[in-house]
Amino acid sequence: MSEQTVQVKTTGKILQSPCGPIIHGLEDVLIKSTSISDIDGEKGILWYRGYRIEELARLSTYEEVSYLILYGRLPTKRELEDYINRMKKYRELHPATVEVIRNLAKAHPMFALEAAVAAEGAYDEDNQKLIEALSVGRYKAEEKELAYRIAEKLVAKMPTIVAYHYRFSRGLEVVRPRDDLGHAANFLYMMFGREPDPLASRGIDLYLILHADHEVPASTFAAHVVASTLSDLYSSVAAAIAALKGPLHGGANEMAVRNYLEIGTPAKAKEIVEAATKPGGPKLMGVGHRVYKAYDPRAKIFKEFSRDYVAKFGDPQNLFAIASAIEQEVLSHPYFQQRKLYPNVDFWSGIAFYYMGIPYEYFTPIFAMSRVVGWVAHVLEYWENNRIFRPRACYIGPHDLQYIPLEQR
Amino acid sequence: MSEQTVQVKTTGKILQSPCGPIIHGLEDVLIKSTSISDIDGEKGILWYRGYRIEELARLSTYEEVSYLILYGRLPTKRELEDYINRMKKYRELHPATVEVIRNLAKAHPMFALEAAVAAEGAYDEDNQKLIEALSVGRYKAEEKELAYRIAEKLVAKMPTIVAYHYRFSRGLEVVRPRDDLGHAANFLYMMFGREPDPLASRGIDLYLILHADHEVPASTFAAHVVASTLSDLYSSVAAAIAALKGPLHGGANEMAVRNYLEIGTPAKAKEIVEAATKPGGPKLMGVGHRVYKAYDPRAKIFKEFSRDYVAKFGDPQNLFAIASAIEQEVLSHPYFQQRKLYPNVDFWSGIAFYYMGIPYEYFTPIFAMSRVVGWVAHVLEYWENNRIFRPRACYIGPHDLQYIPLEQR
Repeated sequence: MSEQTVQVKTTGKILQSPCGPIIHGLEDVLIKSTSISDIDGEKGILWYRGYRIEELARLSTYEEVSYLILYGRLPTKRELEDYINRMKKYRELHPATVEVIRNLAKAHPMFALEAAVAAEGAYDEDNQKLIEALSVGRYKAEEKELAYRIAEKLVAKMPTIVAYHYRFSRGLEVVRPRDDLGHAANFLYMMFGREPDPLASRGIDLYLILHADHEVPASTFAAHVVASTLSDLYSSVAAAIAALKGPLHGGANEMAVRNYLEIGTPAKAKEIVEAATKPGGPKLMGVGHRVYKAYDPRAKIFKEFSRDYVAKFGDPQNLFAIASAIEQEVLSHPYFQQRKLYPNVDFWSGIAFYYMGIPYEYFTPIFAMSRVVGWVAHVLEYWENNRIFRPRACYIGPHDLQYIPLEQR
Repeated sequence: MSEQTVQVKTTGKILQSPCGPIIHGLEDVLIKSTSISDIDGEKGILWYRGYRIEELARLSTYEEVSYLILYGRLPTKRELEDYINRMKKYRELHPATVEVIRNLAKAHPMFALEAAVAAEGAYDEDNQKLIEALSVGRYKAEEKELAYRIAEKLVAKMPTIVAYHYRFSRGLEVVRPRDDLGHAANFLYMMFGREPDPLASRGIDLYLILHADHEVPASTFAAHVVASTLSDLYSSVAAAIAALKGPLHGGANEMAVRNYLEIGTPAKAKEIVEAATKPGGPKLMGVGHRVYKAYDPRAKIFKEFSRDYVAKFGDPQNLFAIASAIEQEVLSHPYFQQRKLYPNVDFWSGIAFYYMGIPYEYFTPIFAMSRVVGWVAHVLEYWENNRIFRPRACYIGPHDLQYIPLEQR
C-alpha cells in the first residue's frame, strides 16, 4: 500500500528522530475501536459495556460482570446459571499445571501465574483445536465458540492457580475448589481451607468487579500484541500477567498498605501529606491517577467497603484510620486540589486484603484474577478485525562497518 | 501535558473512528530510535550494529554476533573468550525449571519454552535483585550490569531448554551441556546425545546468526511492552516467545518443508508455481516478504549452505531439488517479478533442519534461541529511555445503560 500521512493526537512526550516524530510509549495512540469499557477521567466515571460500575458493584457479582464483559450484555437468569455451572466445572487444573505451580512454590506468585497459564494452555484440548484452526487462518463460528469457551476457562482457573500457589508456598497441600461456592468465596476457601466470612467474600467479589477492565493499559496491550500473531489466548494472558507484574503497572495497593504501616498513626497524617508536597519529599502511594482527574469511582466504593469491613472486624493496625486521615489532608490541601490529585482505588483496596490475612505478594495476582476477563474480552474483540502489530524503530546507527578479523582486533 | 498533533506516516491500513484515524496494527508507527539492526528492503540488505550479515555469516559465530548485538561492538579476543566462558557457565538450568519442562514434555515446545523462561526467571537471584531495584525505580550502573548478565544468561540457557524438552518429549533422559563445545554444537549434542557433524553445527550456527535480530516485529514489540512496565527480562522474553508462536509470525520454514514433501518431485515445480499465480490457487510457502522487495539476503546464504549440506549428506526427499526448481520458476515468472516476490529465508532454512532429524515443532524454538539476543538487546536499549506503553482504544459503545435486576430480565 502507498504511504499516507495520518494526524495523531497525543498528550504524551514527543521524541525527535531522523525518520519523524516518535510518540514515546505510544501515549494516546489509537489501536482499535472498542465497546468493552470507557472512562471519563474528568468526571470520574467508569463504564463496563455501558453500565456504570457503581450499579454493578452494588447489585451484581463478578460472575455476572465477567459474563457482561465477555458477551457484551447482561445474562438472563438461565444464561447466568449455565455460565456459573460451566465456570465451576472449569476450576480444576490439569495435573501438569499443578506440578508446575508446585515447582514454583518458592517463587513470586506472578512468575508462577505466568508459567501456570502457559502450562494450562499447553494441555487444553480446546486450545489445541483452536491453534490448529488459526494456523491455517480459520476463525469462523466454530472457532469463536472454542475461543469463548477458552476465555471462560481462563477466568475460572485463575483463582485456583493463585490459591494453589499460596498453599504450596506455605508447605500446605492444596484445597480443591468447592462447587457450591461462588467465585470469590471459593477463592478464599481454596486459600485458607475454611469457608470464608461473607463480608470477606463480598470484599473479594467487589475488588474483582472493580478491576475487571480499564481500557488498554500495558498488560491489556501486551495481550493484543501476542494475540495479533494468532498465537493463543493462554499465551496472550501469560504476556499480560508478565506486564502486570511490572512496578509501573500493578502493585500500588501493596505499597499503600506498607506505607500506612510505616506511618503507624493517624496523628502523623498532616505532617506526611505536607512533606509529600515538598520537592524530594516522600511519595504518597495511591494518590493521583493518570486518567482520573476527579475522585476515582472505584476508590469511593472500596472506601465504603473498607469502612464496613473494619466496623465488623476492627482496625488493629489503624490502616483505615490512617488512610482516612491522609485522605482528609489530601482533599483539603491546595497542592493536591490544584493538581487534581485524589486518592485512587489502590489507596483503599489493600486494607481489607491485609486484614483478611492475604500476603502482599498475592495482591497483584488477585488483580490478575479480575483483569483476566478484560484481557480475553479485548483479545476476542481484536480478533474480530485482527492485524498483526508491526511498528517500526528508526535506525540511527552506522552502516557498512568493516569486519576486522578477531586476530587483528 | 497539553495535547499535540503529530504527523505519522504509514503504508498500513487506516480505520476510521469517532476519536480519529486508527493505524491498524500500528504499521510503520515509530516506537523508538535504535542502533541494533537495520533493513534495506529495496536493496535486500540487513545490518547488525552496522555490519552486513553476509560478512558476519561468512566470518563470525553466533557467540560473536550475539556479543555484537548485545554490546554494540565486536569483542576483542579476550572479551570474546570471557563472554564464551560466562555463557558456558550459564547453560545449566535451575532444577525447578527442569521439572517444569518435564511436566510439559507432551506439550508443544513453544509452551514449554514460555513456561520454562518464566520459571528460570523466578529463581534467578540476579533477577530478583534487579526486580527489587526496578520496583523503586532504580536503574543505574549496578543494575545495568545485572541486566546484561541476565541477558547473557537468557541467550545461554535457551538451547538447554529446547534440547531438554526434546529429550523429555521422547521419553529420554536429558543430556547435560558440555562446556568444550560451542553454542551451536552443544545444542545439537544436547538434542541427540552425540557429538554432531561439523557441517550440521555450522548450519545451526548460521541459522542462529541470520535470525539474531530483525528490527521490531510483533515478538520484539511484545518484549518492549512487557519491559516498559519495568517487569523483568525473563518475563519480556516469555512474552516474545508467546508472540513468536503465532502462525502469522514464526513457523514459515516448517510450512515450506511440508510443502516440498507434499510436492514430492522437482518435475512438478512449473505446474505448482503456475497454479500459485491463479486466484484461489495454492500459496507458495516462503515466497515474498513484507519488507524485502529484493532477494532476502538471509535466503541467499541459507541456500548456499543447503547446497553444501545436501552435497555432503544427500537429498533423499528431494527437498533441495524441489526448492531449487520452484525458485527457478518463481524468479523467471512475470507474476512474481512484477510483484517483487522472491524466496525468503524460510524458503531455504528448513531443509537442513529436516535432514538433521530435527522435528518440525522445534523449528520455531530454534528461531527463538537465535532471536532471544535481539529481544534482550532491544529491551536494554528501550530501558535507557523507558516509558510505559499507553495506547488507547476509541470507545464506540453505549453509556449509562440501566441495570435491570436479574429477576426482571
